Amino acid sequence: MKFMRVGVAGAERPVLLADDRHYDLRGLTADIDGRFLGAGGIELARAALHRGELPETEVAGERIGAPIARPGVVLCVGMNYAAHAAESGSLPPVEPVIFYKAPNTIVGPHDEIRIPRGSTRTDWEVELAVVIGRTARYLDSPQAALECIAGLVTSNDVSEREFQIERSGGQWSKGKSCETFNPLGPYLVPGVSPDELALRSWVNGEARQNSSTKDMIFGVAFLIWHLSQFTVLEPGDLLNTGTPEGVGLSGRFPYLAPGDVVEVEVAGLGRQRTPVTAA
Amino acid sequence: MKFMRVGVAGAERPVLLADDRHYDLRGLTADIDGRFLGAGGIELARAALHRGELPETEVAGERIGAPIARPGVVLCVGMNYAAHAAESGSLPPVEPVIFYKAPNTIVGPHDEIRIPRGSTRTDWEVELAVVIGRTARYLDSPQAALECIAGLVTSNDVSEREFQIERSGGQWSKGKSCETFNPLGPYLVPGVSPDELALRSWVNGEARQNSSTKDMIFGVAFLIWHLSQFTVLEPGDLLNTGTPEGVGLSGRFPYLAPGDVVEVEVAGLGRQRTPVTAA
Repeated sequence: MKFMRVGVAGAERPVLLADDRHYDLRGLTADIDGRFLGAGGIELARAALHRGELPETEVAGERIGAPIARPGVVLCVGMNYAAHAAESGSLPPVEPVIFYKAPNTIVGPHDEIRIPRGSTRTDWEVELAVVIGRTARYLDSPQAALECIAGLVTSNDVSEREFQIERSGGQWSKGKSCETFNPLGPYLVPGVSPDELALRSWVNGEARQNSSTKDMIFGVAFLIWHLSQFTVLEPGDLLNTGTPEGVGLSGRFPYLAPGDVVEVEVAGLGRQRTPVTAA
Repeated sequence: MKFMRVGVAGAERPVLLADDRHYDLRGLTADIDGRFLGAGGIELARAALHRGELPETEVAGERIGAPIARPGVVLCVGMNYAAHAAESGSLPPVEPVIFYKAPNTIVGPHDEIRIPRGSTRTDWEVELAVVIGRTARYLDSPQAALECIAGLVTSNDVSEREFQIERSGGQWSKGKSCETFNPLGPYLVPGVSPDELALRSWVNGEARQNSSTKDMIFGVAFLIWHLSQFTVLEPGDLLNTGTPEGVGLSGRFPYLAPGDVVEVEVAGLGRQRTPVTAA
């Protein structure tokens, strides 16, 4: 069972994908947002599906949007794979390193990535992202954190390395929040363990990243528990959990340029294919 | 003419204050949010006031909320006063240093600040904040940026210095996004120049900060223009423009403790009085 949002940007409709059939969720909710997820929407949709109450819908030829409405925050974890920390010139962190992206960076999984004006170092980052389904505030344990997950989603934490590292006194968000910098989706998938998922990325069909979430320094349950000691995560919020080695920052590959095509995939969560253009 | 939001948290109503009288704005808008501001709501309210179309309302004894609904982002500028950079042990930046706070940190101007669990270094930061009224994307000039300002507001960018500096690999947002960490208001004030406003703060009635926005390294128009080259600012977004010297991080004053009372004021924008409690 997978959740999608289909239609033109800003007017997507909520859709459920199950057994290769698409079902219209508008009878249950106007959108896949914090209100829906926080009210147990995933289980309501599952029950409605099993009762045969959801009408089928046709999505062929339509744009696929990000699978969630704009979140309250996009919270990101940096340096969460040891080999990526090394290629970035850093030691592995002793505690999770976090930063935020502007939520209006989120676009659909096959929308374009726009290279910002003045950029020469726009980079890809395949990541496992977690959508929050229940408020996380001072959680008692990582185990309790698992109950705050609505589902998982493929995310590309696009980054401009000069803006990130050299233009903001070392505070990364300036290179993380350019428009179109967070292709998300295609699917929000509930009920999948985040612990051992393959992550891969390609540029123009050539392999870049190829790793697994089992190599995370801090796992998803630990991250949500830890973050809940420092902020309040709310239903609908998005957590990008870090990228593995194989990005342009390593020096092994050229940065992105208009005309390129970026693909990123997390196993079971779907693959994105985003053309690169100039802003 | 000042805008306010009055009532219990999460259910505030929009109010206009003019000539010491309060007017109910609910005939014009359900809230003071990005939709209202982006649709020219401030001028619509001014016109309705002048036509005598706004009913008066009584607010005595009611809670005052933050003067804007939850924004899409809270974007913050760091080290924007030379003397504060010095007291923090830093050189003045050559370009604006930015970071984000979680928007759910915003509370009313007289609500409580909760010291996070485990905190020993919770600090105050009086700031001039700007509310965006028009989308800012690749603006041509600082002059064009001035047209993107809906109004100004008093802000306290509360910060936990250990979380900010020592717990996130130098990425500040972990110490900026704890619940209640952005008391905002009482007023959103349009039509005021941001260039020479006195900023002051007190703890338990003792003076702490006492400066002026004329000492900013990067002025408001420059900031908005500059930021529009790196992200898209939208109506209703909040920009905290940096704090002057006189914070706890300087070592000259004790950090906050439960029972303290923090006051912050930007001249013409109203004073906050926030009791400090434990989370």
